[in-house]
Amino acid sequence: MNLPDLLAVARGDAPGDLLFTNGRVVNTLTSEIEELDVVVFDGHIAGLGSGYRAHRTIDLRGGYLLPGFINGHTHIESSHLWVGEYARAVLAHGTVAAVSDLHEIANVAGLFGLRQLMQAAEPLPFELYLMAPSCVPASPLETAGAVLGPDEVAEALRLDRAIGLGELMDFPGAIDGLPRVIDKLRPAGDRLIDGHAPGLTGHALNAYIAAGPQSDHESTMLEEGREKLRRGMYLMIREGTTEKNLEQLLPLVDDGTWPRCLFVTDDRSAADLLNDGDIDAIVCKAITLGLDPIRAVQLATINAARCFGLRGLGAIAPGYRAHVIVCDDLRRPQPRQVYFAGRLITEGGRALFEAPPGEIDARLLNSVNVAALTPDSFALPVVGPRYPVIEVIPGQILTGCRIEEVRVVNGRVEADVERDILKLAVIERHQGSGRIGVGLVHGFGLKRGALASSYAHDSHNIIVVGTNDDDMAEAVLAVVARQGGLVAVADGRLLASLELPVGGIMSLESAERVAERGAALNDAARSLGAQVDEPFAVLSFLALPVIPSLKLTDRGLVDVERGDLFDLTAMRED
Amino acid sequence: MNLPDLLAVARGDAPGDLLFTNGRVVNTLTSEIEELDVVVFDGHIAGLGSGYRAHRTIDLRGGYLLPGFINGHTHIESSHLWVGEYARAVLAHGTVAAVSDLHEIANVAGLFGLRQLMQAAEPLPFELYLMAPSCVPASPLETAGAVLGPDEVAEALRLDRAIGLGELMDFPGAIDGLPRVIDKLRPAGDRLIDGHAPGLTGHALNAYIAAGPQSDHESTMLEEGREKLRRGMYLMIREGTTEKNLEQLLPLVDDGTWPRCLFVTDDRSAADLLNDGDIDAIVCKAITLGLDPIRAVQLATINAARCFGLRGLGAIAPGYRAHVIVCDDLRRPQPRQVYFAGRLITEGGRALFEAPPGEIDARLLNSVNVAALTPDSFALPVVGPRYPVIEVIPGQILTGCRIEEVRVVNGRVEADVERDILKLAVIERHQGSGRIGVGLVHGFGLKRGALASSYAHDSHNIIVVGTNDDDMAEAVLAVVARQGGLVAVADGRLLASLELPVGGIMSLESAERVAERGAALNDAARSLGAQVDEPFAVLSFLALPVIPSLKLTDRGLVDVERGDLFDLTAMRED
Repeated sequence: MNLPDLLAVARGDAPGDLLFTNGRVVNTLTSEIEELDVVVFDGHIAGLGSGYRAHRTIDLRGGYLLPGFINGHTHIESSHLWVGEYARAVLAHGTVAAVSDLHEIANVAGLFGLRQLMQAAEPLPFELYLMAPSCVPASPLETAGAVLGPDEVAEALRLDRAIGLGELMDFPGAIDGLPRVIDKLRPAGDRLIDGHAPGLTGHALNAYIAAGPQSDHESTMLEEGREKLRRGMYLMIREGTTEKNLEQLLPLVDDGTWPRCLFVTDDRSAADLLNDGDIDAIVCKAITLGLDPIRAVQLATINAARCFGLRGLGAIAPGYRAHVIVCDDLRRPQPRQVYFAGRLITEGGRALFEAPPGEIDARLLNSVNVAALTPDSFALPVVGPRYPVIEVIPGQILTGCRIEEVRVVNGRVEADVERDILKLAVIERHQGSGRIGVGLVHGFGLKRGALASSYAHDSHNIIVVGTNDDDMAEAVLAVVARQGGLVAVADGRLLASLELPVGGIMSLESAERVAERGAALNDAARSLGAQVDEPFAVLSFLALPVIPSLKLTDRGLVDVERGDLFDLTAMRED
Repeated sequence: MNLPDLLAVARGDAPGDLLFTNGRVVNTLTSEIEELDVVVFDGHIAGLGSGYRAHRTIDLRGGYLLPGFINGHTHIESSHLWVGEYARAVLAHGTVAAVSDLHEIANVAGLFGLRQLMQAAEPLPFELYLMAPSCVPASPLETAGAVLGPDEVAEALRLDRAIGLGELMDFPGAIDGLPRVIDKLRPAGDRLIDGHAPGLTGHALNAYIAAGPQSDHESTMLEEGREKLRRGMYLMIREGTTEKNLEQLLPLVDDGTWPRCLFVTDDRSAADLLNDGDIDAIVCKAITLGLDPIRAVQLATINAARCFGLRGLGAIAPGYRAHVIVCDDLRRPQPRQVYFAGRLITEGGRALFEAPPGEIDARLLNSVNVAALTPDSFALPVVGPRYPVIEVIPGQILTGCRIEEVRVVNGRVEADVERDILKLAVIERHQGSGRIGVGLVHGFGLKRGALASSYAHDSHNIIVVGTNDDDMAEAVLAVVARQGGLVAVADGRLLASLELPVGGIMSLESAERVAERGAALNDAARSLGAQVDEPFAVLSFLALPVIPSLKLTDRGLVDVERGDLFDLTAMRED
């Protein structure tokens, strides 16, 4: 930016590029609405008030002008969209900046993956900020495609646009002050460290916060969120595809707490981004639930900017970036137009620019490496009359643990479709080690067939749920054949699929196409009996061994509270 | 700090150093008061809640525990106290951290002076932060002891504890985007740039803010403060010795603006620090004026910390520094005790530690260099029947400009005591150049004698006001003989004095002694007829050519709005 030229426009001595007139400007700095003109030059707000002129004038005819939304915490890989398509999708909903913990791609492809994605984002009309992933892999109880030790984390923190350390999921290690965690905190310096502390309270929460994390997006209960706010964490109110916490947490936002609250999506599917929206959807829902519209906009803009120290974002004021949203109804601030750096880039919910994926490095396109696999690979030996079963909890990424009598056939534990006890397996897919963890899950509801995915938090091994070993094998082989993807299989036949060739986690297709394929996959899953909404999203969290309580990785069943593999010897009949 | 040990205390696995019990903790993060214990270890807050133990327990018996106060903008040199004495004085009032623009010492002794002062602060139980002085000298229309160009500013920004760029007083240069200003902004990077924009509004204010400054402490009027808040500046509400803006600006603090407001002192005398207080005095006054006590504490703590990005300050939460205040009445939160890093350092308004000045470098102790001077040096030639007169405005550092008929004797303009038009002079004292600016001032009220000072913003030349040239010369020579100080002289006799040997601006005496000498000087000034409160503080601003409207420097009368020397040819009789 040429500062002297910007100042000439601000002084009124020279015309700006763009002048917004007859607008009602949402002032996130003073919690007011002001009726005044806004002049833009060279991608920045130059001035507000009367007496300005510009080469082009936009008459807002009483519409509202608000700062572009900021997503305070997301893993963009969860949309399965490569970064250009992701940006197109969320910009249409007014999100101009996302703080992204890219630990999905990092689990697959390490620093190389991080760099590739950040570089692909550079030319886009979008501000992608990086939280350097702190926990790759999330736990030593799983196998990822890469390990980021303290040196690699420090290197990630040196990347352009790295503004902090990503969610510190290893909360037991942080609380205990283990070197494997502490050594990764130091290079963050004064930058924000994102927390991840589901259900943590009391002394343990104090210790976790004292270790460094200053934000948390895992609160699901009112008192949990209240305690985290009180002890010093920014309250990131999450509305993801499967994780919806706004209704529970909104009462915490009041005149004395609002500066420390913000909105995040964590994980949102392409279909949700297209049909429901991104941060705008949370803003609308919060207003519907009773939050003052200006305050809702503040949580979606300036509060995120302040949390991360992003100067120049989150407000419409001189010197700030000219990322602005035009909308007609402040009680439902879905963007009519979005301007990025003073340039109109989306209108009526449609991006006005293209962002083809370009050349993707071959190393990212060949990431699935699985050893020979047959239906027998899913054999589950009997350890006793009962077996631990992962319990799906609707609307949560938390799971329960049930100890159930199991169906035994020929000395093996088998799925018990009648009682909705299905087989679940996680197949290591980075090193071709042949390692498979097999377990049981309740709550999916499949009556036949199998669902498989190479998108499984956080290591992104292949996860498969099924009613029989044959279909499970078929489904996994279909994922392998595509070098990553989601598939639904029944009776040996492929019903639906989505290819995810980039690291086995992201598509090269458009958001619309990904959403369409996703819908077809959901339809197929439903036709097989699936009873959960978003079965593939639910599936993707069943392998995440840092969210309580029972999870499955390529190394076996994980007892998350205990931080170790589940002790199956306890299942033996004495 | 040993983090693993701190975490052991936070977990409750090991005893802390100190446990505060039965206290009411002011939570600046949620705007609440909580009744819970606070455990401290190794200078930090380890945890809050029950079930903690420590080697020492402090029973607060229902008293309040609040975070130590932070002064968001001050020039500590204005107290005339060397840094140890300054810290002792303000710590007694609960100020544990000060953000100081050390442009007074920098005007006298450049980077060398900055370094000496910051080094002297290092071992103290006090957090002194540096805003790198941006305008040394404040204006090209005066002569300072040093010039900080862009390279020197960049070097100052690299000092430990440099957290931003000091007040950008050259607002005309900033608004016009002149390289002399712009080149100093760049090295600040993402750090805060303090503004200084008295009376600025509209397009000019927009341009100034677009240039970089994100805070302002010069608002004196409600609408002025409102516009600055709206356009993106942190509102620093100032209560100095001569500048009192709280009553005017307090209505701007509401539920939607409070996070962007904070308290500052700018310039406070030693007597004020001892008798009235520091930030605590502003907090008390704000509460008396109707501000909610918790909010008043927030403006004095967390808001300043957030404004400057000072992590670990401004709240009582795990991992934060254990700088806390104990007080009995939250409606009048004057500290009963102050703890710095968990150590009791002041009690009942008295510091429990000594901070002798130590060895001061000889270069700082020999800073006054004045050419030969006689009563004739103050001769003021006649330019016409009228002459511009600086008008003192009580309670403001702004001045007016009156064009008055003047008393002429033997072809020279002389003081006119009857009409309270006195002579004012500024004598260059860094280079021994012999340069003297002479003018007239109204509003002082002296009936005889003269007052002189080597503390004159910002260049700290020697300023003298008097009823006759003989006493003026006598007074200046008395200042020179002391290598800096304040003096009151009448009929050739010294009535009172305060030596300021450090750079001609700071004493090596205790706060009590400086205050006592200051009181004697004020008494002497009153005995000579002075009608202003704090005559030496008022005098010190008459040479500051960046505060409107008429000022005097060693180069002559300055028309501040015009940004140039006053055009005396306009006074000629045509």
